[in-house]
Amino acid sequence: MPDIRILNPDTLGKPLGQYSQITRVKASEFLFIAGQVAVDSTGSLVGADDVDAQCVQVFANIEAALKSQGAGFANVVEFTTYLVHSQDIPKFMKYRQREFPRMFPAGAYPPNTLLMIDRLVGEQFLIEVQTVAAL
Amino acid sequence: MPDIRILNPDTLGKPLGQYSQITRVKASEFLFIAGQVAVDSTGSLVGADDVDAQCVQVFANIEAALKSQGAGFANVVEFTTYLVHSQDIPKFMKYRQREFPRMFPAGAYPPNTLLMIDRLVGEQFLIEVQTVAAL
Amino acid sequence: MPDIRILNPDTLGKPLGQYSQITRVKASEFLFIAGQVAVDSTGSLVGADDVDAQCVQVFANIEAALKSQGAGFANVVEFTTYLVHSQDIPKFMKYRQREFPRMFPAGAYPPNTLLMIDRLVGEQFLIEVQTVAAL
Repeated sequence: MPDIRILNPDTLGKPLGQYSQITRVKASEFLFIAGQVAVDSTGSLVGADDVDAQCVQVFANIEAALKSQGAGFANVVEFTTYLVHSQDIPKFMKYRQREFPRMFPAGAYPPNTLLMIDRLVGEQFLIEVQTVAAL
Repeated sequence: MPDIRILNPDTLGKPLGQYSQITRVKASEFLFIAGQVAVDSTGSLVGADDVDAQCVQVFANIEAALKSQGAGFANVVEFTTYLVHSQDIPKFMKYRQREFPRMFPAGAYPPNTLLMIDRLVGEQFLIEVQTVAAL
Repeated sequence: MPDIRILNPDTLGKPLGQYSQITRVKASEFLFIAGQVAVDSTGSLVGADDVDAQCVQVFANIEAALKSQGAGFANVVEFTTYLVHSQDIPKFMKYRQREFPRMFPAGAYPPNTLLMIDRLVGEQFLIEVQTVAAL
């Protein structure tokens, strides 16, 4: 494992969700994973009009990308999350509260930047997550 | 050249355009290039109301940035693309279909995250592309 | 200090503000700092309806994050800035003109990508800045 430290200094406000303020990483190898949307391995949409189901698929895709390189969620150094509807923020928060403790059993949630934008590549997509990881 | 592997694992859906799912990179030197818009080296707008012409200028700027450091498109590990109008998605796709095979002759298209946002720094800009590369 | 070179090649247009076109960085350790909004260390909003005050708090948070790791603004390799209102662009520009010369006394302003999006995590936030730094 690379040396990944996930940190929340006292001089910054406590994170308001399942993320942290800083990753400090010493590594010589990185993964850049294209933003993932809710399509399965056959290219079909998963979770039409259902942001929770889309979250499940998006993070399953990220996990598949990580696993394909012998890595896992513990290798993630940064997420950037794009939502299309601000009404979905509470559902995204709830998804993370439910699932992240299992995905990140050490309780070290990577930094995340949460942004509301106009649209993703297709109207059917409600969430996209971009990931950087270290190997 | 740094060790850059551009990958599409079977466990993820096939990319729906000229991009790939993952870059795995072993490198000790990186370039972070500010998001490029369609201005030429004199600072003038190129391609008013013409997203294809703006794509040409944006990627010419990225190439100039890479070349200034002795690098080229083969060094790119990640793009993030911002469009102002979702109607321009097909034109952006067409631009890449036409130009990327020449720019990336090995057929290894870097991961890209495509986002529709409200506006760029000026109303005249239709596309902006942020780039990370490895040396 | 890591080897950080901030560059503006002649082949690209002159930056239209307090940012540069490229960072070239040789480093083995990086910081990924979650997008910062205008909350103080107690989690309270700073600068309701006041984008200048929010800029001050956001960059104070980034500085706190950097300092917590023994670093400072000279370690920054990339900013990505999200504004909610395009009317705030001139105020953000003015903030940087006023403060960046002090924060970056060497005059080497890191690359920045400036994006206008729909909304941040709460309606009260007018600006968010994501930072990557090298140690």
